[in-house]
Amino acid sequence: MTEASRAADATSLAAPAGAPVVGIVMGSDSDWPVMQEAARALEEFGIPYEADVVSAHRMPDEMIAYGQSAGGRGLRVVIAGAGGAAHLPGMLASVTPLPVVGVPVPLRYLDGMDSLLSIVQMPAGVPVATVSIGGARNAGLLAARIVGTGGDALALAVRERMVAFQADLRDQAHAKGAALREQVARGLTS
Amino acid sequence: MTEASRAADATSLAAPAGAPVVGIVMGSDSDWPVMQEAARALEEFGIPYEADVVSAHRMPDEMIAYGQSAGGRGLRVVIAGAGGAAHLPGMLASVTPLPVVGVPVPLRYLDGMDSLLSIVQMPAGVPVATVSIGGARNAGLLAARIVGTGGDALALAVRERMVAFQADLRDQAHAKGAALREQVARGLTS
Amino acid sequence: MTEASRAADATSLAAPAGAPVVGIVMGSDSDWPVMQEAARALEEFGIPYEADVVSAHRMPDEMIAYGQSAGGRGLRVVIAGAGGAAHLPGMLASVTPLPVVGVPVPLRYLDGMDSLLSIVQMPAGVPVATVSIGGARNAGLLAARIVGTGGDALALAVRERMVAFQADLRDQAHAKGAALREQVARGLTS
Amino acid sequence: MTEASRAADATSLAAPAGAPVVGIVMGSDSDWPVMQEAARALEEFGIPYEADVVSAHRMPDEMIAYGQSAGGRGLRVVIAGAGGAAHLPGMLASVTPLPVVGVPVPLRYLDGMDSLLSIVQMPAGVPVATVSIGGARNAGLLAARIVGTGGDALALAVRERMVAFQADLRDQAHAKGAALREQVARGLTS
Amino acid sequence: MTEASRAADATSLAAPAGAPVVGIVMGSDSDWPVMQEAARALEEFGIPYEADVVSAHRMPDEMIAYGQSAGGRGLRVVIAGAGGAAHLPGMLASVTPLPVVGVPVPLRYLDGMDSLLSIVQMPAGVPVATVSIGGARNAGLLAARIVGTGGDALALAVRERMVAFQADLRDQAHAKGAALREQVARGLTS
Amino acid sequence: MTEASRAADATSLAAPAGAPVVGIVMGSDSDWPVMQEAARALEEFGIPYEADVVSAHRMPDEMIAYGQSAGGRGLRVVIAGAGGAAHLPGMLASVTPLPVVGVPVPLRYLDGMDSLLSIVQMPAGVPVATVSIGGARNAGLLAARIVGTGGDALALAVRERMVAFQADLRDQAHAKGAALREQVARGLTS
Amino acid sequence: MTEASRAADATSLAAPAGAPVVGIVMGSDSDWPVMQEAARALEEFGIPYEADVVSAHRMPDEMIAYGQSAGGRGLRVVIAGAGGAAHLPGMLASVTPLPVVGVPVPLRYLDGMDSLLSIVQMPAGVPVATVSIGGARNAGLLAARIVGTGGDALALAVRERMVAFQADLRDQAHAKGAALREQVARGLTS
Amino acid sequence: MTEASRAADATSLAAPAGAPVVGIVMGSDSDWPVMQEAARALEEFGIPYEADVVSAHRMPDEMIAYGQSAGGRGLRVVIAGAGGAAHLPGMLASVTPLPVVGVPVPLRYLDGMDSLLSIVQMPAGVPVATVSIGGARNAGLLAARIVGTGGDALALAVRERMVAFQADLRDQAHAKGAALREQVARGLTS
Repeated sequence: MTEASRAADATSLAAPAGAPVVGIVMGSDSDWPVMQEAARALEEFGIPYEADVVSAHRMPDEMIAYGQSAGGRGLRVVIAGAGGAAHLPGMLASVTPLPVVGVPVPLRYLDGMDSLLSIVQMPAGVPVATVSIGGARNAGLLAARIVGTGGDALALAVRERMVAFQADLRDQAHAKGAALREQVARGLTS
Repeated sequence: MTEASRAADATSLAAPAGAPVVGIVMGSDSDWPVMQEAARALEEFGIPYEADVVSAHRMPDEMIAYGQSAGGRGLRVVIAGAGGAAHLPGMLASVTPLPVVGVPVPLRYLDGMDSLLSIVQMPAGVPVATVSIGGARNAGLLAARIVGTGGDALALAVRERMVAFQADLRDQAHAKGAALREQVARGLTS
Repeated sequence: MTEASRAADATSLAAPAGAPVVGIVMGSDSDWPVMQEAARALEEFGIPYEADVVSAHRMPDEMIAYGQSAGGRGLRVVIAGAGGAAHLPGMLASVTPLPVVGVPVPLRYLDGMDSLLSIVQMPAGVPVATVSIGGARNAGLLAARIVGTGGDALALAVRERMVAFQADLRDQAHAKGAALREQVARGLTS
Repeated sequence: MTEASRAADATSLAAPAGAPVVGIVMGSDSDWPVMQEAARALEEFGIPYEADVVSAHRMPDEMIAYGQSAGGRGLRVVIAGAGGAAHLPGMLASVTPLPVVGVPVPLRYLDGMDSLLSIVQMPAGVPVATVSIGGARNAGLLAARIVGTGGDALALAVRERMVAFQADLRDQAHAKGAALREQVARGLTS
Repeated sequence: MTEASRAADATSLAAPAGAPVVGIVMGSDSDWPVMQEAARALEEFGIPYEADVVSAHRMPDEMIAYGQSAGGRGLRVVIAGAGGAAHLPGMLASVTPLPVVGVPVPLRYLDGMDSLLSIVQMPAGVPVATVSIGGARNAGLLAARIVGTGGDALALAVRERMVAFQADLRDQAHAKGAALREQVARGLTS
Repeated sequence: MTEASRAADATSLAAPAGAPVVGIVMGSDSDWPVMQEAARALEEFGIPYEADVVSAHRMPDEMIAYGQSAGGRGLRVVIAGAGGAAHLPGMLASVTPLPVVGVPVPLRYLDGMDSLLSIVQMPAGVPVATVSIGGARNAGLLAARIVGTGGDALALAVRERMVAFQADLRDQAHAKGAALREQVARGLTS
Repeated sequence: MTEASRAADATSLAAPAGAPVVGIVMGSDSDWPVMQEAARALEEFGIPYEADVVSAHRMPDEMIAYGQSAGGRGLRVVIAGAGGAAHLPGMLASVTPLPVVGVPVPLRYLDGMDSLLSIVQMPAGVPVATVSIGGARNAGLLAARIVGTGGDALALAVRERMVAFQADLRDQAHAKGAALREQVARGLTS
Repeated sequence: MTEASRAADATSLAAPAGAPVVGIVMGSDSDWPVMQEAARALEEFGIPYEADVVSAHRMPDEMIAYGQSAGGRGLRVVIAGAGGAAHLPGMLASVTPLPVVGVPVPLRYLDGMDSLLSIVQMPAGVPVATVSIGGARNAGLLAARIVGTGGDALALAVRERMVAFQADLRDQAHAKGAALREQVARGLTS
């Protein structure tokens, strides 16, 4: 384990302090097992967040209110996950000037292809920053990159940690390569 | 031309009288060339309608207001057309108890497959009655069938006309068959 | 549990009274595990229905007779589920002036994409109100919305219950949001 | 031009004599430009055929009557072309014991993928012999192969011509190869 | 159980007598669990068949010899199953004038879509009668329909049995409908 | 034309002043007709940018150097467009801690589906903010939203303009609705 | 224009000398407009080749003979292009120990997806080196890379030229970048 | 077991001697269960290889260094496996003049279709020899065929073994056919 990953682990034990700067929302609590990876990533970067169920189809008024108030409440990024005819990310993007990150949640059929197209194919004027099917961890990391473009102390800390995080990814890949080379030297398993 | 189609033609010259019972909405006026086929079908059945641009992404508040007031204003069915990440039909279905008919409008890429999946794959609780890609005429006919299930004079008239319309479809197919048989009897063109 | 859902639960214990106004049909009894969700939804709204196996491919004459007699027997909506090269919804729509709701039943391969396209891509003239893959519950709810557009006492009751149902969906989503916020406050599970 | 193709050409000028043994049907006369290639192939093999518009959705009663009477009228094979939610081939296969050849006709969107799946994915019990998207010529050739399996004089003649036809395909390919080799020897065009 | 199905059952106990008129071939014995449904269907119709592994990719010379000799050995139809880049049905169709029925065998990925396209999308001149993904039973039934178009005693017997078989399908569907109606009358299971 | 759009138009005439904060890169100059919409959007928001050809496949060393130096040179966001096996956005994301926005450029075949999947389906650890196929304008708007989350004067200006821009979208939709209502009042065109 | 591209241009004027080491084959001469890009690439690298029509479906015996004799005649690589149910590359790979490069040729429908899957999804034991849809130029370049792995003078020359070719790609991309930067500096076109 | 497969088995027990001529790389050690089939195939042919984790996204500098040094270190072919937005094969192909074989590794969603398109759809100039989804064994066999085109002793040995390997495939298919014929003679299992 490297320095960077140790630091990340330490962070993840502590609840994020301060007012949330990222909002994680989803259409149903059944999306949480997928979406909590976004929360975990934000915790690794020490970014305060909030998480909530905000359904475009079941509570449209509150959904719009959530989006319209997001910037005023101090959020800088909204992460929205939804599946099937997934309208939440796009609808939020239409009522906030903040960047919205969309996570296509795969449902029982079609492997998330419907979720992906419903999120990414937004009309000109209302962008959604779409990540991979089920890619909530990357949604959290993308939010961290966005927070890192700001000018305050949090942004600075996140930017530094992102560099360490990327070095850590490299180190882990190196270690895996070494282990694989060793394993192959011992011969293939039948 | 049969009796039924002559009657339909006559109707289509007259603007529908009375308060609208079907609302036709679309995300942009660029959808009108596709969506006006729904209007034409309603005119053939003598069903009063209204048509408007109601964009889920560009005017979300008004879109919700449209849906919430639709039933109270006397509409019985809402037809909504949209393309790409098409959210309008599903969002309207979430704010009205009326049946909502969704028309997947094909855009420049993907042949409307994104529009179709964004409209039809709605989560349990909020149905959208989806028709074929670009199938606005069928949306109008489906709305007519729904209006025809009511108990008033309009419903009765629509139901009768629908029976005549279906007989007319059959007659037209018969005529096409006769013409084709004649053509084949004269020999294939090279 | 809210008032509305308690009312719905009470209803679901009682068999629907009166002559059926919705017919639920499917190509094979193997579709019943999917299709019974339509029946359940209708029971929640107190709408009398019938259910039957009517196969387009195995009993075409009876299938056509079913469709041709549906309106005369008092049905207002037909719900038809089928899988693969799913012809039942479209064939019924061609022999009845009633609105037909199609449910694409997913089979062993292709995740229901073949069922969806076989049902939704109907030619101009013969619409099928298609719902999501496996979306029988939404088919029932769509039928309820359609019944709710009528002018009789049943329609009025259904319309009122639909408003309560939608409020209930919202309340449930609120409750899920509250539970999620609490859970996140206690920390992420590893 | 080879002997075999000259013979075929000669045949194609003469209308097929005798009672039709293959029926070519389609949902609309707009399918004829695609479907006439099936007729042309049958003429090349001297197989009497009939062609008609038989719409599953616009004239279901007549469609079923067509299928139920096909064998009794002397047809040995039915070729059915349809597009979109293409139900004609499968419905005919359900009302005749004859082999039914299905031609997926491509419509404006989806490149015929909906037509293909609606035709080929038939449930166990009711097979349709599906050919390629727009592959009406192959439908005619497949019908010829089937006719060729019979025991009468027509079958014998078709079988012999099929062998000559296949030799002809080979000869044409040879000739194309020779021409290409020559062209390449002269150098690539810029 | 109806008369027709009892007769079919009786037949299936006896090995088909006489020289095979249908050849069932597949690229690997791993396809047999899928392909044996074709054999079973042929046995139900009393049609003598042979079954073999004939791989286009592993024994191309023998594959071509199989196709070239098929007609001469008395086969009237060849059924070929293959998966992935499935070349066997098309290659056999290119070396025999007999009708070739192709069965797309689904492999581990893509749900058989690759198998389907590799079989059905044959170029003009060389048709393959394609059935559904994994649809070996329908391949057998299609072969039976083709055999039934001949003029000999076997053809006559098969044709009669096919009529009975279709009546049987209808009776089974009726029985399923009756059972379902009864089950629904007793109330939905929770 | 509204106040907001007039302001935007005025801006678009002036070249963006100051050091670039957004980098727009693409694999080939043939992508420029698509990608310049991103530039145009940035100009509307007064955001200085640079544009360059940086090919992952033709100049990998320079591509990596571009990514590694992007943050140090003052860029806050990188927009990368590519088609087919589109590797540029993902490779850049792996060598910079900045947010990278990916634009799937549609090529001659597959309507950009290959481009979309090659960009959006990134492995955990390296996110790309993907927009719609050919959606370069939205890429520019997303970059503007991200720039707007910063704390400096530019961010403030962009945030304010984004609110005006969204109001403008709404006004334009209103105007389109009014025009459509008028047109429909005059009757449908034949 | 760089040194390397000038050298390549010079070469392309001269017919390749010596016995062919690469065979370019296709199912029909209609594939030549696509496939000649492979020939052009080989000429740029001074690699002698032959080109021919060798149809898997129209001349299967000759196709197998071609594959079986390819190595003995001095070929080191076979490039095979085909469309639809594209069997040529895989069939050749089954009768030669040489590497076979497959080019999916797009036909009228499906944008070459059928061609791609028919070529790339080969069963274990018989590989085909598949390139992109319509990617004949890359097929030629891949053949050149393979020829370059040999030990003779031709291999050495090809390897050197490949390094120059890659440098040339980089230089061209540089030049395009410079031109784009200049164009942007002059302002966007409206 | 045949002579050829016995020889292959014997070889597979011994570690490959001499400097590696094939490099097998993958983005993560989680790809090894798929990719080791490439190693096993190379061992069957006595081809020395190396295996390593080289991630395009986690260690881009090292990935480029690996590609740039591959030829100089004596490798003749690089096999690269990756999943999702799979960039490794294409990026390696852009920095080495060697042939690169790409293996689309299927991930949790989309059955490897994203991996396939990300690898095979490379732009003109930079080819990747793509094999089937999960087709690592074929990648090894393709590398063997390429090694077999060289002029040295290893190439000669590989070429001879490939001929024996193909004969072995044929013998195994023969044996499977014999077993199947026997099994069918004993009757179908119920």
